[in-house]
Amino acid sequence: METAGADMPIPVRISARHVHLCQRTIRALFGRDYQLQPEKALGQPGQFACRETVALVGPQGRIAHVKVLGPPRSEDQIEISRTDAIALGLDAPLKLSGDVRDTPGILLEGPAGRMYLDRGVLRALRHIHMSPADAARLGVHDRQVVQVAVKDGSRRMIFDDVVVRVAANFRLECHLDSDEGNAAGIDEGAVCWLVPHGP
Amino acid sequence: METAGADMPIPVRISARHVHLCQRTIRALFGRDYQLQPEKALGQPGQFACRETVALVGPQGRIAHVKVLGPPRSEDQIEISRTDAIALGLDAPLKLSGDVRDTPGILLEGPAGRMYLDRGVLRALRHIHMSPADAARLGVHDRQVVQVAVKDGSRRMIFDDVVVRVAANFRLECHLDSDEGNAAGIDEGAVCWLVPHGP
Repeated sequence: METAGADMPIPVRISARHVHLCQRTIRALFGRDYQLQPEKALGQPGQFACRETVALVGPQGRIAHVKVLGPPRSEDQIEISRTDAIALGLDAPLKLSGDVRDTPGILLEGPAGRMYLDRGVLRALRHIHMSPADAARLGVHDRQVVQVAVKDGSRRMIFDDVVVRVAANFRLECHLDSDEGNAAGIDEGAVCWLVPHGP
Repeated sequence: METAGADMPIPVRISARHVHLCQRTIRALFGRDYQLQPEKALGQPGQFACRETVALVGPQGRIAHVKVLGPPRSEDQIEISRTDAIALGLDAPLKLSGDVRDTPGILLEGPAGRMYLDRGVLRALRHIHMSPADAARLGVHDRQVVQVAVKDGSRRMIFDDVVVRVAANFRLECHLDSDEGNAAGIDEGAVCWLVPHGP
């Protein structure tokens, strides 16, 4: 029996800066025949955080210890916050994850080498992953743009223009970046609601 | 003739981390009989940014080159973002500016000395300064809690729980911290609107 409805809470994941790498880049940074070492499963099935980290080197600054996420992808993607972009001296555009057209490049440093990427640096547009069943319960559809509300004690913030992404293997999870999480005053374990429902 | 109404745009100021110091602390950090050097007038009459900077030293980190704002106050106040609080290793509570009760302390370093403050570190609650005339035009009153919307290209964010502060000498200005500005994707020169008005 389904009891959850359109007012059900949606778990929030705060995405700290991270990189997705292709095999060619993994080879350049970590060495020939290197395999990423999974460290922790992530919310979406098959996705994992790795033991490996890289350093990001931009025109104005360097950020070390940036987590690699797996599995390897067909294209490199460097997901940072606006605070990170300012520290690196880059202008990282807002993009749906996976869309690296018209994004700036960056130098990556790994333990076995450095590699300059032509493109791939972006700020991920906030979005909600969900299954078709969750979409039906919440009354929304793939690519729909919704508002979600989060609460920090008695203080509320509403994120407008949140993109719904529906796929059979998606687990219900709203992804915000670290600036959005810090501005809202929330951490891992927080939940959000579709507006006009709670909190 | 007044043409502006409740839909008038409100200038936004993004407050980067900064400190307000009392004379005793200025003496300890910059030397006996030191006078702050005004560098730039700020939006609110009589307030200015100084040439002087200090370093903040917390249990987990250090942040250098933090601007001192003037004029001197009767109590020290260290205004940081949540990103800064995490970097310093502090838990900075959300407070209305001026309310330093129950806030953590911090070590300050200046060119002439160091001083440990017992309290004073906070994240400033977002707020809007305005004159009584602007309050009348916008249809709000002192201490009212409102929603404001900001836009970054086509992407909108709504800050709920924004406190209105009315005084005869206040100039219309909405103050957000750097996390809020970065999450919303806005810079100096941005404007916001009271909800349910634009954008």
